[in-house]
Amino acid sequence: MAKEITGREENYSQWYNDIVKKANLADNSAVRGCMVIKPYGYAIWEKMRDQLDKMFKETGHVNAYFPLFVPKSLFEAEEKNAEGFAKECAIVTHYRLKNDPDNKGKLMVDPDAKLEEELIVRPTSEAIIWNTYRDWIQSYRDLPILINQWANVVRWEMRTRPFLRTAEFLWQEGHTAHASKAEAISEARLIHDLYAVFAEEFMAMPVLKGYKSENERFAGADDTFTIEALMQDGKALQAGTSHFLGQNFAKAFNVTFSNDKNEKELVWATSWGVSTRLIGGLIMTHSDDEGLVLPPKLAPIQVVIVPIPKPEPELMEKAEEISHALKALGISVKIDKDETKRPGFKFAEYEMMGIPVRLGLGKRDLENNTIEVARRDTKEKSSIGLDNVVPFVENLLDDIQENLFNRAKSYRDSHITLVDTFEQFKEVLATKGGFISCHWDGTSETEEKIKEETKATIRCILLDAPEETGVCIYSGRPSSKRVIFAKAY
Amino acid sequence: MAKEITGREENYSQWYNDIVKKANLADNSAVRGCMVIKPYGYAIWEKMRDQLDKMFKETGHVNAYFPLFVPKSLFEAEEKNAEGFAKECAIVTHYRLKNDPDNKGKLMVDPDAKLEEELIVRPTSEAIIWNTYRDWIQSYRDLPILINQWANVVRWEMRTRPFLRTAEFLWQEGHTAHASKAEAISEARLIHDLYAVFAEEFMAMPVLKGYKSENERFAGADDTFTIEALMQDGKALQAGTSHFLGQNFAKAFNVTFSNDKNEKELVWATSWGVSTRLIGGLIMTHSDDEGLVLPPKLAPIQVVIVPIPKPEPELMEKAEEISHALKALGISVKIDKDETKRPGFKFAEYEMMGIPVRLGLGKRDLENNTIEVARRDTKEKSSIGLDNVVPFVENLLDDIQENLFNRAKSYRDSHITLVDTFEQFKEVLATKGGFISCHWDGTSETEEKIKEETKATIRCILLDAPEETGVCIYSGRPSSKRVIFAKAY
Repeated sequence: MAKEITGREENYSQWYNDIVKKANLADNSAVRGCMVIKPYGYAIWEKMRDQLDKMFKETGHVNAYFPLFVPKSLFEAEEKNAEGFAKECAIVTHYRLKNDPDNKGKLMVDPDAKLEEELIVRPTSEAIIWNTYRDWIQSYRDLPILINQWANVVRWEMRTRPFLRTAEFLWQEGHTAHASKAEAISEARLIHDLYAVFAEEFMAMPVLKGYKSENERFAGADDTFTIEALMQDGKALQAGTSHFLGQNFAKAFNVTFSNDKNEKELVWATSWGVSTRLIGGLIMTHSDDEGLVLPPKLAPIQVVIVPIPKPEPELMEKAEEISHALKALGISVKIDKDETKRPGFKFAEYEMMGIPVRLGLGKRDLENNTIEVARRDTKEKSSIGLDNVVPFVENLLDDIQENLFNRAKSYRDSHITLVDTFEQFKEVLATKGGFISCHWDGTSETEEKIKEETKATIRCILLDAPEETGVCIYSGRPSSKRVIFAKAY
Repeated sequence: MAKEITGREENYSQWYNDIVKKANLADNSAVRGCMVIKPYGYAIWEKMRDQLDKMFKETGHVNAYFPLFVPKSLFEAEEKNAEGFAKECAIVTHYRLKNDPDNKGKLMVDPDAKLEEELIVRPTSEAIIWNTYRDWIQSYRDLPILINQWANVVRWEMRTRPFLRTAEFLWQEGHTAHASKAEAISEARLIHDLYAVFAEEFMAMPVLKGYKSENERFAGADDTFTIEALMQDGKALQAGTSHFLGQNFAKAFNVTFSNDKNEKELVWATSWGVSTRLIGGLIMTHSDDEGLVLPPKLAPIQVVIVPIPKPEPELMEKAEEISHALKALGISVKIDKDETKRPGFKFAEYEMMGIPVRLGLGKRDLENNTIEVARRDTKEKSSIGLDNVVPFVENLLDDIQENLFNRAKSYRDSHITLVDTFEQFKEVLATKGGFISCHWDGTSETEEKIKEETKATIRCILLDAPEETGVCIYSGRPSSKRVIFAKAY
């Protein structure tokens, strides 16, 4: 077997791009920075989306859909938010093309079809949504509003990478409205917890839970809660954020309600989102030099059965029988019916695709009433009695899910380093990478200087960080709490 | 109870708008021609989407996602398609805003951030997709490609109406690639059939199945298959189209494959779509002067239980018991727990929402071991023994589904009028409306003249239209087949 992809040690970034390409997850497109999500990549997104959607609905949220475009006057209404996104947005200025008189068969923008007001392609939807909520909210009886939308958004990023950072991406964005500050904060925290559960239980991706420093907050938020994961190259990935928006958008869009004493008050808000970026996190948390590794709970195909050397009738019959029994347990199964490729080629292909369990069924196996079970995570193989294969596989999928989480967690835990000097800080960043727990004086100035000198940023301040007397590694000023730094995607 | 909405007889168009608003389906937005789909409207769309998605997957299709933007040079590559959409598309010309120096706190388009090539917000995705398929297809072994995407598209329509015609809408668009003409045609027909089954079995909306005249074809198609429904005002609604695209896009984007003799051939294509427009069709097929009427298979809430006069513990206990039993059968149930509104108000509200079955449970009912069952479609009420209510409701939902279809079909069937002269044609259009079956000489010229004089267009040529000698109602020239005319949305 020729080596298919670049090794992680050799070139981590190329390794990532190779997996995206060879596992058929995404492709480049003719549009700068926009990717095509291929069917296999999209199937993973569907699994993620369906699970998240279920969790949102179980916690009382409903879906809706708001326009793609934001008129410029609304976009600029909440100034901090506008400032945060102004430099990276796609702007619609015209609504018609016409034949180019100088260029037969070509079209040109019709200068007579200029919009009176430019439209921004949504980079996020707070503005258009809060402008709508104004009409929906009169009284405290109209609150809370707990709405989510699944949508595409556009941020004109200069450097893009498939899934991790693209000009257009798919996401969900929740936008909730509340009668009190406490209720809004508790909503933001509820979703923060929900994201962490999703990341850990479904993606098998351990996350740190914390809040952002002022510098790293969402533009327009009073507080940003974040889940931060660690990739295999020691860089952090912000995997999901949940924002307490205070009354900033209510002020900007004049959204008030009458409380039970019939007094007008400004509405409290949250917003929260995760995106197709999670697929990038999934790839980089588990995959290896043979290709993608998927946790069973998000694998579009959980088990593949390969008749060896070919799909002959006798083997196919048994394969169908096993497939049928597995499917009855809710397990997704593919039977390889290809007659042209050799088993070795197929094995490599399914490893590249990250299918959690591979069953190899040969004639001798059938005679011996056994089957070969290969797990993708550890690449261990074992021969199992055919009568026992279904419960064995069912348990194995749980084992793999758990093993992937434990493996990622032990890597992550061993890459949280406590440092007490800036020298150590730089040393750890340069060698070991990962999360660095250290004291910081709480100023944006220090944060920016550290970023300038090392490219590391404060990923979060842990929710459960203990009070601890210390001094800032950079300024030497007093600090009462450690924070988490890392280089990040 | 004050009359909530305008009657159909009084003002059909206002009646439609009233239902959209009062049933909380959609709202206007700050963006010209773009609507906000509210949670209840979106829940109906989710039911439609999930069912269609299931049907697509069962017929071998997979989902993927392609970019929102189409570079102008790709957009114009297939000339007929480009011509068809050029006059109604949103165009992105810039990628950055900056502070307006003359207007503190305001933003302006940054003239330094002009795109080298303009990007069209997709009105449909053939261009971007076929530009991608070129890289995916080398050999006949790469075919067929059977891809669907769920996406938003933008068509800058001048006159818009919620769901029926909006500048941005949600849809699915299938784009398939095939090695032979026969296979592509058979794919287009498969989806045409699938759409008809969905419309009739799930939406309870009878449709005529036919193909479009050349004039009415999708821009860039060799053949367009359509399903056409009839609304209660006698106007037709094109509800879904499936296009055989020939090799037009393969030619424009140079997409070839090597056949099994290793000869290069151009790839054959189809595309097909249905959109949130279907919600407009659903409203106008079944609803009445009391509000929305929904077929049970697409109703987000199928049964509502109203404790009368209030949600007292004893009543709530029984309501929970019934709800539990219904849910176990896969029926969606809401129990009204509101303590402030009167039953009459609630009944009117649930009628407005089109909930198929309403159960009214009072104390005397409980004593008598009965419950009041009201069906939304006929507004009949009956008192049912409590022990029997669960199977009764289960059957009733099927009855309602069937009744809605039969009622709509009998209206539709009685509104297909055979005419043989242009006088009759105009007379029927002016009085009865509906579909008109008549002879036409097959020329675009005649079709356009009829449209000019009457606003009626050829909706379709029925697939099963018998050969029949006749003369064109307009030109008197010979014709071998009747076609279906109507005024349309």
